[in-house]
Amino acid sequence: MFEVKVKIMLKKGISDPEGANTLKALHLLGFDKVTDAKTIRTFDLLIEGTDKNKVKNDVEKMCQRLLTNPVIHNYEIEIEEK
Amino acid sequence: MFEVKVKIMLKKGISDPEGANTLKALHLLGFDKVTDAKTIRTFDLLIEGTDKNKVKNDVEKMCQRLLTNPVIHNYEIEIEEK
Repeated sequence: MFEVKVKIMLKKGISDPEGANTLKALHLLGFDKVTDAKTIRTFDLLIEGTDKNKVKNDVEKMCQRLLTNPVIHNYEIEIEEK
Repeated sequence: MFEVKVKIMLKKGISDPEGANTLKALHLLGFDKVTDAKTIRTFDLLIEGTDKNKVKNDVEKMCQRLLTNPVIHNYEIEIEEK
Protein backbone atom coordinates (compact mmCIF):
# COMPACT_ATOMS: atom_id res chain seq x y z
CA MET A 1 0.00 0.00 0.00
CA PHE A 2 1.36 3.41 -0.94
CA GLU A 3 0.32 6.88 0.09
CA VAL A 4 0.85 9.23 -2.83
CA LYS A 5 0.67 13.00 -2.68
CA VAL A 6 0.27 14.86 -5.97
CA LYS A 7 0.98 18.57 -5.51
CA ILE A 8 -0.47 20.66 -8.33
CA MET A 9 0.77 24.21 -8.79
CA LEU A 10 0.01 26.81 -11.42
CA LYS A 11 2.84 27.50 -13.85
CA LYS A 12 4.62 30.84 -13.71
CA GLY A 13 2.66 33.53 -15.50
CA ILE A 14 -0.69 31.77 -15.10
CA SER A 15 -3.01 33.94 -13.06
CA ASP A 16 -4.17 32.62 -9.69
CA PRO A 17 -7.38 34.54 -8.92
CA GLU A 18 -8.01 32.64 -5.69
CA GLY A 19 -4.53 33.50 -4.42
CA ALA A 20 -4.90 37.12 -5.52
CA ASN A 21 -8.26 37.47 -3.78
CA THR A 22 -6.92 35.84 -0.63
CA LEU A 23 -4.05 38.33 -0.62
CA LYS A 24 -6.49 41.23 -1.02
CA ALA A 25 -8.71 39.94 1.78
CA LEU A 26 -5.70 39.49 4.10
CA HIS A 27 -4.68 43.09 3.43
CA LEU A 28 -8.23 44.28 4.14
CA LEU A 29 -8.09 42.44 7.47
CA GLY A 30 -4.89 44.31 8.33
CA PHE A 31 -2.34 41.58 7.57
CA ASP A 32 -0.30 43.93 5.41
CA LYS A 33 3.02 42.11 5.88
CA VAL A 34 1.82 39.38 3.51
CA THR A 35 3.37 40.08 0.11
CA ASP A 36 2.24 37.06 -1.89
CA ALA A 37 -0.36 34.31 -1.70
CA LYS A 38 -0.48 31.29 -3.97
CA THR A 39 -2.77 28.31 -3.92
CA ILE A 40 -1.64 24.71 -4.29
CA ARG A 41 -3.98 21.77 -4.69
CA THR A 42 -2.92 18.38 -3.41
CA PHE A 43 -4.49 15.01 -4.03
CA ASP A 44 -3.74 12.47 -1.32
CA LEU A 45 -4.20 9.01 -2.84
CA LEU A 46 -4.04 5.54 -1.32
CA ILE A 47 -2.92 2.96 -3.87
CA GLU A 48 -2.67 -0.81 -3.48
CA GLY A 49 0.46 -2.46 -4.77
CA THR A 50 3.96 -3.56 -3.91
CA ASP A 51 6.03 -2.12 -6.77
CA LYS A 52 6.91 1.52 -6.17
CA ASN A 53 8.02 2.10 -9.77
CA LYS A 54 4.75 0.78 -11.16
CA VAL A 55 2.80 3.00 -8.77
CA LYS A 56 4.90 5.98 -9.85
CA ASN A 57 4.21 5.24 -13.53
CA ASP A 58 0.50 4.86 -12.84
CA VAL A 59 0.36 8.16 -10.97
CA GLU A 60 2.16 9.90 -13.85
CA LYS A 61 -0.55 8.57 -16.15
CA MET A 62 -3.29 9.73 -13.76
CA CYS A 63 -1.76 13.21 -13.76
CA GLN A 64 -1.67 13.32 -17.54
CA ARG A 65 -5.14 11.91 -18.06
CA LEU A 66 -7.17 13.45 -15.22
CA LEU A 67 -5.53 15.26 -12.33
CA THR A 68 -3.64 18.06 -14.04
CA ASN A 69 -3.87 20.31 -17.04
CA PRO A 70 -0.39 20.36 -18.61
CA VAL A 71 -1.03 23.75 -20.20
CA ILE A 72 -1.32 25.54 -16.86
CA HIS A 73 -0.06 23.16 -14.15
CA ASN A 74 3.21 21.86 -12.80
CA TYR A 75 3.06 18.89 -10.49
CA GLU A 76 5.17 16.98 -7.99
CA ILE A 77 4.64 13.39 -6.90
CA GLU A 78 5.63 12.09 -3.45
CA ILE A 79 5.30 8.37 -2.76
CA GLU A 80 5.51 6.81 0.68
CA GLU A 81 5.15 3.10 1.45
CA LYS A 82 2.64 2.31 4.19
CA MET B 1 11.05 37.19 4.98
CA PHE B 2 9.24 33.94 5.66
CA GLU B 3 7.60 31.44 3.38
CA VAL B 4 4.58 29.98 5.12
CA LYS B 5 2.58 27.00 3.94
CA VAL B 6 -0.88 26.53 5.40
CA LYS B 7 -2.21 23.03 4.66
CA ILE B 8 -5.97 22.82 5.01
CA MET B 9 -7.59 19.41 5.29
CA LEU B 10 -11.16 18.37 5.88
CA LYS B 11 -11.87 16.90 9.32
CA LYS B 12 -12.71 13.21 9.63
CA GLY B 13 -16.33 12.56 8.80
CA ILE B 14 -16.70 15.66 6.64
CA SER B 15 -17.55 14.63 3.11
CA ASP B 16 -15.07 15.48 0.36
CA PRO B 17 -17.09 15.46 -2.88
CA GLU B 18 -14.12 16.49 -5.01
CA GLY B 19 -12.04 13.64 -3.66
CA ALA B 20 -14.93 11.18 -4.08
CA ASN B 21 -15.51 12.26 -7.68
CA THR B 22 -11.80 12.06 -8.45
CA LEU B 23 -11.74 8.52 -7.07
CA LYS B 24 -14.76 7.58 -9.22
CA ALA B 25 -13.16 9.10 -12.33
CA LEU B 26 -9.86 7.29 -11.67
CA HIS B 27 -11.77 3.99 -11.42
CA LEU B 28 -13.61 4.73 -14.67
CA LEU B 29 -10.24 5.31 -16.34
CA GLY B 30 -9.11 1.88 -15.16
CA PHE B 31 -6.95 2.92 -12.19
CA ASP B 32 -8.73 0.47 -9.91
CA LYS B 33 -5.85 0.06 -7.43
CA VAL B 34 -6.61 3.50 -6.02
CA THR B 35 -8.61 2.98 -2.83
CA ASP B 36 -8.93 6.52 -1.52
CA ALA B 37 -8.57 10.08 -2.79
CA LYS B 38 -8.61 13.15 -0.58
CA THR B 39 -8.08 16.78 -1.46
CA ILE B 40 -5.87 19.16 0.46
CA ARG B 41 -5.72 22.89 -0.17
CA THR B 42 -2.49 24.74 0.58
CA PHE B 43 -1.89 28.46 0.74
CA ASP B 44 1.71 29.43 0.09
CA LEU B 45 2.27 32.86 1.67
CA LEU B 46 5.25 35.21 1.64
CA ILE B 47 5.38 37.32 4.79
CA GLU B 48 7.78 40.12 5.65
CA GLY B 49 9.27 40.11 9.10
CA THR B 50 12.13 38.91 11.24
CA ASP B 51 10.37 37.37 14.24
CA LYS B 52 9.28 33.81 13.54
CA ASN B 53 6.99 33.64 16.58
CA LYS B 54 5.15 36.78 15.58
CA VAL B 55 4.69 35.45 12.04
CA LYS B 56 3.36 32.18 13.48
CA ASN B 57 0.86 34.06 15.65
CA ASP B 58 -0.24 36.19 12.71
CA VAL B 59 -0.76 33.13 10.51
CA GLU B 60 -2.83 31.47 13.27
CA LYS B 61 -5.04 34.57 13.26
CA MET B 62 -5.30 34.52 9.44
CA CYS B 63 -6.41 30.88 9.63
CA GLN B 64 -9.06 31.67 12.21
CA ARG B 65 -10.35 34.79 10.49
CA LEU B 66 -10.14 33.94 6.80
CA LEU B 67 -8.32 30.89 5.54
CA THR B 68 -10.09 28.03 7.30
CA ASN B 69 -13.50 27.09 8.59
CA PRO B 70 -12.92 25.58 12.05
CA VAL B 71 -16.15 23.59 11.84
CA ILE B 72 -14.92 21.47 8.94
CA HIS B 73 -11.16 22.03 8.58
CA ASN B 74 -7.96 20.99 10.29
CA TYR B 75 -4.84 22.90 9.36
CA GLU B 76 -1.06 22.70 9.64
CA ILE B 77 1.35 25.61 9.44
CA GLU B 78 4.92 25.27 8.14
CA ILE B 79 7.22 28.28 8.39
CA GLU B 80 10.55 28.57 6.62
CA GLU B 81 12.89 31.55 6.80
CA LYS B 82 14.02 32.89 3.42
